[in-house]
Amino acid sequence: MSNTHTSSSFAALQNDSFLRACLRQATPHTPVWLMRQAGRYLPEYCATRAKAGSFMGLATNVDFATEVTLQPLERYPLDAAILFSDILTVPDAMGLGLSFAQGEGPRFATSVRDEAAVAKLQVPDMNKLRYVFDAVTSIRKALNGRVPLIGFSGSPWTLACYMVEGQGSDDYRLVKSMLYSRPDLMHRMLEVNAQAVAAYLNLQIEAGAQAVMIFDSWGGVLADGAFQEFSLAYTARVLALLKTEHAGQRIPRIVFTKGGGLWLDEMKGLDCEVLGLDWTMNLGRARAMVGGAVGGPGKALQGNIDPNVLFAPPAQIQKEVRRVLESFGTPHLDMLKSGPTHIFNLGHGISQYTPPDAVSALVEAVHSHSQVLRR
Amino acid sequence: MSNTHTSSSFAALQNDSFLRACLRQATPHTPVWLMRQAGRYLPEYCATRAKAGSFMGLATNVDFATEVTLQPLERYPLDAAILFSDILTVPDAMGLGLSFAQGEGPRFATSVRDEAAVAKLQVPDMNKLRYVFDAVTSIRKALNGRVPLIGFSGSPWTLACYMVEGQGSDDYRLVKSMLYSRPDLMHRMLEVNAQAVAAYLNLQIEAGAQAVMIFDSWGGVLADGAFQEFSLAYTARVLALLKTEHAGQRIPRIVFTKGGGLWLDEMKGLDCEVLGLDWTMNLGRARAMVGGAVGGPGKALQGNIDPNVLFAPPAQIQKEVRRVLESFGTPHLDMLKSGPTHIFNLGHGISQYTPPDAVSALVEAVHSHSQVLRR
Repeated sequence: MSNTHTSSSFAALQNDSFLRACLRQATPHTPVWLMRQAGRYLPEYCATRAKAGSFMGLATNVDFATEVTLQPLERYPLDAAILFSDILTVPDAMGLGLSFAQGEGPRFATSVRDEAAVAKLQVPDMNKLRYVFDAVTSIRKALNGRVPLIGFSGSPWTLACYMVEGQGSDDYRLVKSMLYSRPDLMHRMLEVNAQAVAAYLNLQIEAGAQAVMIFDSWGGVLADGAFQEFSLAYTARVLALLKTEHAGQRIPRIVFTKGGGLWLDEMKGLDCEVLGLDWTMNLGRARAMVGGAVGGPGKALQGNIDPNVLFAPPAQIQKEVRRVLESFGTPHLDMLKSGPTHIFNLGHGISQYTPPDAVSALVEAVHSHSQVLRR
Repeated sequence: MSNTHTSSSFAALQNDSFLRACLRQATPHTPVWLMRQAGRYLPEYCATRAKAGSFMGLATNVDFATEVTLQPLERYPLDAAILFSDILTVPDAMGLGLSFAQGEGPRFATSVRDEAAVAKLQVPDMNKLRYVFDAVTSIRKALNGRVPLIGFSGSPWTLACYMVEGQGSDDYRLVKSMLYSRPDLMHRMLEVNAQAVAAYLNLQIEAGAQAVMIFDSWGGVLADGAFQEFSLAYTARVLALLKTEHAGQRIPRIVFTKGGGLWLDEMKGLDCEVLGLDWTMNLGRARAMVGGAVGGPGKALQGNIDPNVLFAPPAQIQKEVRRVLESFGTPHLDMLKSGPTHIFNLGHGISQYTPPDAVSALVEAVHSHSQVLRR
């Protein structure tokens, strides 16, 4: 794949608060974006999806993907956009046949459950994912410098969960059966996934993604010991293969392990700029563990309000936003030195049942209260 | 309710390793029992359930409940029995109408979602739960002193989850909507639940339960801050109301918060003897935090192997058992002083798909390798 777009072909960035916070640089307010911010809670998203016919019809059409990525930015003063896509595009390109039945989660036509199926796995031809790279470039152009664009993928372990189970699971019985019975097969699958995810994210970066995020959505279901061996090690493998700069710009890398708070001390060693956290972890405690001192090394933190807060009235949303901001504490305020910073987000994707007005209340509260904290 | 059975009416205990370990006293091997050890993975259980017609038909019939409680003890040299019942009997006695459709989880006919429904909640007449107390006495007699009998209930928060949602949930949207929107209603519900759970467990103790366990199965879905306020505080409330002795015997109290490893430092302050852990928490780290020194105060630890290990061949099961035993480290070996102890268990209920022979391999490995560790 050729790199058809250099940064010079894109408009200059107007709001760099998200990228600055990723790099632990001071910002005038705490930047905020929401996981799954382009989604079913927005009537305009549902209208576009209806036109597209299916989730994959939406994700594989550059114009539709661009349209829905920008929809939440029209409603809310968010500080970043995230590519509209799915965490499972890579195994789809491996030939497993991803689909989304209406009202259900992802499902693969083929699952990978035995030695023969694992042996067949290969890093897919990245041309099969061209629709993603084209969408990245199209979205980046359409953003016209308003906010930065985040690219993403599922982590090697999270991909493996779906590849073995064939769909979501309550107990991860099939993938863990393979992990405990045939760790050799699991390691082979994870190595292929790591190579594929790294190639995929690097091409998103070349296409215009200004930061990338690895969603380790199912890392938290693993046992202590198994997490380090089967999830963390392969996230580290992806990170080692990723570009850290493109067209003269640093490309921050975010790792989010849902339910990973217990292993934060070990995640501290990952070669990435930002760690995402879910709502179970206290941000002040996380900051003390990995945030680092001003002028020293450390990670920016992203998260972590419970998405269910958005079902409460505005006064309660404001109260909970303040609680999360204050749990992180006073952000880093020295423009000349790097130091602890916070990117506000949910601790998980936004619910499809969220009232859109609740998101307005949340974003407004983050911006206003985080400015108060800086005074 | 009158206490019809004093300890003198029951046979003397032959295997007290579980109770000793709960009290941080040395034992010749690490005692082991399995959450949901009487369950669908056993063909003899399925046969009894078929006779009973339904889960509640089984649980409310003293003879059936006694029969299935003892079934796993006939197969495996387990060190404790646990009452066959459900964590949701208390809200059923409140009139919410518990049922279990074949192949599905629990469901309530009535759910509690608004101010009027919460206002109506009361501690139920404990006579409605007489079938449980009768089962406890019957099981205790049938055990005839082989191993101790554990009684149990869901925690106030876990009961509230089901009472509001009406069934299991992926996102706890309804119960968390109430928590964030109307914390006053949630607190009222939790106070009623705490009073009811305490009365219920005390009557199980009077009927013959030799230890009691509080299953906070859904504590781990709460945000930091919300966990302390809505789960931990009400578990503490139950503990404050529980008997700690009966008929001259100490009654150990076990608290298990699934996904609660992050809050272990705060759970350390609970007035209970044992903390249960799931597989995400390293036992050695937990021991350092809450296990205490020999001769000093501290908690025994219970857990925490991933139940999916039971889908691996015997050699892998043995390896994972050793890994869990060794993560705890050398157990307390001084018969005269209390000190850190470990009760082996799964980190969650056993899967219905477990091959029964795998349980034999696990129990045997726990007993034999824990004796090796004591040499």
